[in-house]
Amino acid sequence: MDTQIDIDAASLRADVERTGEFGSVDADTGVGRTALPADDANVRAREYLVDRMKAVGLDVRIDAVGNIAGRWTPSTCDPDAPPVAAGSHLDSVPQGGIFDGVLGVYAALEAVRAIRDSGVVVNRPLEVVSFTGEEGTRFADGVLGSSVAAGELSVEDALALSDGRVSLRTALEEAGFRGTGRLDASEWHAWVELHIEQGGHLETAGVPLGVVTDITGTTRGHVSIDGRADHSGTTAMDARRDALVAASELVLDVEATASEIATTGTGTAVGTVGRLIPTPNAVNVVPGSVSMRLDLRSVEQLEIDRQARAVKDSLDSLERQHGVETSLDIPYEIPPTRLSERVRDTVETAASRRGVETLTLHSGAGHDTMQVANVTDAALLFVPSTGGHSHSPKEWADWSDCAVATQVLAESLALLASNTEHNQHRTYE
Amino acid sequence: MDTQIDIDAASLRADVERTGEFGSVDADTGVGRTALPADDANVRAREYLVDRMKAVGLDVRIDAVGNIAGRWTPSTCDPDAPPVAAGSHLDSVPQGGIFDGVLGVYAALEAVRAIRDSGVVVNRPLEVVSFTGEEGTRFADGVLGSSVAAGELSVEDALALSDGRVSLRTALEEAGFRGTGRLDASEWHAWVELHIEQGGHLETAGVPLGVVTDITGTTRGHVSIDGRADHSGTTAMDARRDALVAASELVLDVEATASEIATTGTGTAVGTVGRLIPTPNAVNVVPGSVSMRLDLRSVEQLEIDRQARAVKDSLDSLERQHGVETSLDIPYEIPPTRLSERVRDTVETAASRRGVETLTLHSGAGHDTMQVANVTDAALLFVPSTGGHSHSPKEWADWSDCAVATQVLAESLALLASNTEHNQHRTYE
Repeated sequence: MDTQIDIDAASLRADVERTGEFGSVDADTGVGRTALPADDANVRAREYLVDRMKAVGLDVRIDAVGNIAGRWTPSTCDPDAPPVAAGSHLDSVPQGGIFDGVLGVYAALEAVRAIRDSGVVVNRPLEVVSFTGEEGTRFADGVLGSSVAAGELSVEDALALSDGRVSLRTALEEAGFRGTGRLDASEWHAWVELHIEQGGHLETAGVPLGVVTDITGTTRGHVSIDGRADHSGTTAMDARRDALVAASELVLDVEATASEIATTGTGTAVGTVGRLIPTPNAVNVVPGSVSMRLDLRSVEQLEIDRQARAVKDSLDSLERQHGVETSLDIPYEIPPTRLSERVRDTVETAASRRGVETLTLHSGAGHDTMQVANVTDAALLFVPSTGGHSHSPKEWADWSDCAVATQVLAESLALLASNTEHNQHRTYE
Repeated sequence: MDTQIDIDAASLRADVERTGEFGSVDADTGVGRTALPADDANVRAREYLVDRMKAVGLDVRIDAVGNIAGRWTPSTCDPDAPPVAAGSHLDSVPQGGIFDGVLGVYAALEAVRAIRDSGVVVNRPLEVVSFTGEEGTRFADGVLGSSVAAGELSVEDALALSDGRVSLRTALEEAGFRGTGRLDASEWHAWVELHIEQGGHLETAGVPLGVVTDITGTTRGHVSIDGRADHSGTTAMDARRDALVAASELVLDVEATASEIATTGTGTAVGTVGRLIPTPNAVNVVPGSVSMRLDLRSVEQLEIDRQARAVKDSLDSLERQHGVETSLDIPYEIPPTRLSERVRDTVETAASRRGVETLTLHSGAGHDTMQVANVTDAALLFVPSTGGHSHSPKEWADWSDCAVATQVLAESLALLASNTEHNQHRTYE
């Protein structure tokens, strides 16, 4: 591979900025957008992507759950060889940033265009992918399209999901993005996702590219604590069953346990009570009940399990000490994901060829790559987040960092699709 | 005073039940009503009261803020003598019970009727009073009409109060209850309010009548804690400024301080965080800020001040330990009220004559009597609450307890209005 692959930084930036205009929101600081799966902004972003893929000469397919794939099959390759795929997602959280997801889709598109135009010989098809509904803001808790592509969720179950008003099936049909078949990630030779970091490690280290080793697992808990609502003036302290006092002890226990495990273990454990709602929530009433949402993560399942066990112990103790009744429900449990050493090595090789420094790190946030990594070799690359902002119009990435990372992505995809890449496709259980 | 005063329990019950029908609400358990100041239900309750007062032969006046007073001036008295007054209020909290306030108004009306019909000689006019807006659910934080009657709040300031849509002036005018002049509680020789306990002391003690010695003072605080909202997956434990963790420490500090003071002091201290709202309150975001409402009470101002000081100390410590910014605002501060020994002694004499056992206790809830007690000798009597329920359709009182208490109220008013009551009217600052 002696021919030079050169990505077009201006074109990448134009595509990301154009997509940011669909569903753009007013923000005091930064540039934001709202594009929920199959809403108007998301549909316009999808239509723009399809147009751009066609302009680059890709063969575009929409699958049954709206995943978009654009394939380039070079004349130099066996068209039936397992392709190398790259991409991300086009949906956003409400009032999110313009890079999250979008950068990965257009970096993949620009990488494939640059490879094709370079004249470099590749021996596998290249596929640019945009998954449906990564953020979990509509129809599902997240990674919707990639769950279907990884065979974790059936097409029928996915289409039956509802936002409380319409089904995903109806929403996609109305949007013109209900295609056929199922994008199958297990058929891919390898997968690479480029994403904004959503944290501050790269910026702090002054390194332009992150190579992710592990994605933390996430366990989410719904806790309810039932005490007794009482008049705050007439109920003596020792006669109360104050649900908020009990809930406050749990908040502190969750924080203390995660901090202790983070200090002594892998350093990746985090535990958060992000949502807490007392009832009736009135100044002159002792809180009668509290509902809470917990989020427990680590790259080691054992460290998540330790946190969950500590929550149970804490609730038992609260029942004894405060006369409250408690319940813990775990509706969401995604195990940690270890990413492919083979693909990471390829990325490191590509970065080194381009003289780009890298930092290996873990991802505390979930990504479509979690699903894809269950069925093929997958890597996840990070571009530095300015100020570490995420899910906010303040989210930002330096355009030159985006260009450097896209350049490394292009080199990596070319290596993965070339015959010089000899590692075997590993077998998945 | 040899003639027998006999109250009519059936008439009392009929008036309370009839009033409960105005604004009645559906409830799984119990009987509830919603009658906010000057709303339709409250206006119908007012009209019914005026009709009932006229039927009993009282001279009815409506003052400028809608306070209703019905006076009986017996032929045996100097019509200019300071009257003895009794009553309560006709407004309710949303989804409140039928006894709170209403019982005190109709107990006073029935007591005056029974005194008049008994032929007992009294030497002062008797006045039945219903104050506007005791509960603080519309226009003001509570004890609205009694604040005006006690000269604490001017008529003009009161009329200018708004519910965000209309002023009290307009609402009263539209309701036909904007009268003239100002009911002046400082002109009264004495005041007695009968009220449901809203707690469980009388029921636990098995005693049918409570004589209140003190009403606790109440200090309310608005606390805000500002940390930093962050991604719950990508933000390491030691890099967080979690506002909910800080808020939870404050909740526990408020509870611990009040419990400690209650154990070592007067036994009346209570401290409550009744309202707590995290922002953005999402499962996957470290809480960026929390707003809270505190309610601190005791019969001793020093015990309230100690609680407020502990809150300040706690906030200072949270700023140092958690890197958060905090603020404490005290928008509401009512000092404790000590009730008149003279009037309480008269009530005890009346109860003893009727063979009714009494329990002396404090009131943790605020009442119109707090305001009246600032300008004349005042007493507050409690009827047992079944199950201690308050501000709920589950609120209940035994009808026979209501009758016994009304009988003692009638005897007390007769004693206070007779020449045999020799105690001097004390001087108020």
